[in-house]
Amino acid sequence: MIAEDSVGIVETRYFTFAEGPNEMELECGRKLGPITIAYETYGELSPTKDNAILIVHALSGDAHCAGFNSPKDEKPGWWDDMIGPGKGIDTAKYFVICSNIIGGCKGSTGPSTINPETGAPYGIGFPVVTIKDMVNAQKALLDHLGIGSLLCVIGGSMGGMQVLQWVLSYPEMVKLAIPIATAAKLSTQAIAFDEVGRRAIMSDPDWLGGDYYGKAVPSRGLAIARMIGHITYMSDKSMHHKFGRRLRDKEEYGYDFVTDFEVESYLNYRGDSFVKRFDANSYLYITKAMDYFDLAAPFGSLKNAFAGLKTKFLVISFTSDWLFPPYQSKEIVSALRHNNIDAIYMEFESDYGHDAFLLEVEQEGRLISNFLEHGRKQA
Amino acid sequence: MIAEDSVGIVETRYFTFAEGPNEMELECGRKLGPITIAYETYGELSPTKDNAILIVHALSGDAHCAGFNSPKDEKPGWWDDMIGPGKGIDTAKYFVICSNIIGGCKGSTGPSTINPETGAPYGIGFPVVTIKDMVNAQKALLDHLGIGSLLCVIGGSMGGMQVLQWVLSYPEMVKLAIPIATAAKLSTQAIAFDEVGRRAIMSDPDWLGGDYYGKAVPSRGLAIARMIGHITYMSDKSMHHKFGRRLRDKEEYGYDFVTDFEVESYLNYRGDSFVKRFDANSYLYITKAMDYFDLAAPFGSLKNAFAGLKTKFLVISFTSDWLFPPYQSKEIVSALRHNNIDAIYMEFESDYGHDAFLLEVEQEGRLISNFLEHGRKQA
Repeated sequence: MIAEDSVGIVETRYFTFAEGPNEMELECGRKLGPITIAYETYGELSPTKDNAILIVHALSGDAHCAGFNSPKDEKPGWWDDMIGPGKGIDTAKYFVICSNIIGGCKGSTGPSTINPETGAPYGIGFPVVTIKDMVNAQKALLDHLGIGSLLCVIGGSMGGMQVLQWVLSYPEMVKLAIPIATAAKLSTQAIAFDEVGRRAIMSDPDWLGGDYYGKAVPSRGLAIARMIGHITYMSDKSMHHKFGRRLRDKEEYGYDFVTDFEVESYLNYRGDSFVKRFDANSYLYITKAMDYFDLAAPFGSLKNAFAGLKTKFLVISFTSDWLFPPYQSKEIVSALRHNNIDAIYMEFESDYGHDAFLLEVEQEGRLISNFLEHGRKQA
Repeated sequence: MIAEDSVGIVETRYFTFAEGPNEMELECGRKLGPITIAYETYGELSPTKDNAILIVHALSGDAHCAGFNSPKDEKPGWWDDMIGPGKGIDTAKYFVICSNIIGGCKGSTGPSTINPETGAPYGIGFPVVTIKDMVNAQKALLDHLGIGSLLCVIGGSMGGMQVLQWVLSYPEMVKLAIPIATAAKLSTQAIAFDEVGRRAIMSDPDWLGGDYYGKAVPSRGLAIARMIGHITYMSDKSMHHKFGRRLRDKEEYGYDFVTDFEVESYLNYRGDSFVKRFDANSYLYITKAMDYFDLAAPFGSLKNAFAGLKTKFLVISFTSDWLFPPYQSKEIVSALRHNNIDAIYMEFESDYGHDAFLLEVEQEGRLISNFLEHGRKQA
């Protein structure tokens, strides 16, 4: 029984472009093609095509952000609480497109894709893609869908980086932008965590220089990378509230190196289950894209980067997010306002850390809903 | 040329006890013996034996906290800025003992020690030792040295846990206590980081169930554990100041998975060099001892734990320390004051994160010096 405010059963679709001589040039200078992009759409495009919203996702996300791909699915898409009829992003009003990223492993072209030149998976022969490249691929998808302008681009974490890049790469196309729990560039600390995760993967003997497809996957390394990730997505406080020092299935310390604390068990479980649904090479490529992202760099400053923009912004951060701390969102807002760009800033009080952008959906949803409605009315 | 305020050339000594039938009973219920403890001493014990100070160390520390073991040494002991004639802990006034911990790999009995029963290294056959066990072994050392009372016990991080345990285990022996950048129990987040480090080690194929001595060591896993550790010892701000987004030996992104950023290079270097000087099994044991430490647990509350103590406290924390955040020091101070125990609390403003306790030596040294002098005078 699917709830009334669900988008219901939805289908992931695939669009392929950049075939043959039309290969896409990437920021690194290399060319890539053919390129397939996985995407989903919900709701109806209005006759004036003024209601299209693009959803862009975080590291481990995919094109399936709402509803169910099959009646048997136990879990809906990754942002289902936010997207559906009557929800924060109301599919009764808006035509919602969720696009996967290139470099990933969720149906779009990435390192696990067969390289047509060799007949084998790219592995780390896949070119290093950037946030800008991801956005350019999404632009090709929108061209294919006949969408020439977007009411809004919305995304959290690495999705927020794509939002910012969308506005700079295609400023005339984007009326409203909602970057959530994100940054114009990663902190040194966040780069450091990414590097440890990559090293864990690349030092796993099963990684085999990235050429492990069809063999054992580098599960030990990827699980460790994911465990580190999970710690950075939560907060000291949320971990304390969720697990404290509770022991797992025992009354007293085991005095051994088998799991003692609930939090250990949780992290090990999350690490191990991630291995089943994510490609280790994609983890390398996507974290590298995040590390490289530096919106201001080509312009000398963030203020210069935003000069002349007409897009209106709603920037959202969460107090306990230490991976993308609020000061990074404030830097964005400050640079926008310096350019007299309309920018609403909301810092939500939350203990959930970086995960808050997926969890604090009620307040966040109301805010987004109002911003969209108001923004659409303004001609 | 050794500076005038150095303790000069010092020798690490070794004391062995718990031999034969006198094996030491551990908190886990198992027995251990013989036990060797590495230690150093500086300065002279006063005729009334009222000037002995015990220094206890953090995870990767050792007995060598000041001076040089050889004229060829390039670096002095780990807290040399703090300990010496005229320094914060003045060896012209005090008799300073620095004791290594059991479970480690710096000369005291630990998992890399030969098990006399088997003739082979203990490996993970070594019993899980706790902070309390470490303190009990140090007590045996002090008995051997003829030290019946301590003017002060001082230590940071895991050293601070030993300080707290010393006061509870041997309250009549400790006049002053200085726990620095520590906690009465680890946060859930800190336990989580420890578990990821342990998993990195134990999932390294070279770990061989802990039985790797004489073979290749689990260097990949231990390096990853240490890299995670280093991130938690610094702060977002100190990493930003030290490295920012500077690239390593290049002007532009490499668009590959070789090191790009300085911070990556630094972490990889620190991880790799740690492997040469530390035993992976000891890393497992020591982090486990920290995770298990829960001073209040046997008493029901921290307030109850401190009831009736006469020891005076100087509790020190650092604003940017997120591994042992100031709120944990405040909890200690609050429970002490609830029992009308003299407790000075100092929260230093510092960007250095947890490392601050080793780096902010100037202010810290003055404070400690005054506290010791004042405390010694009070009969």
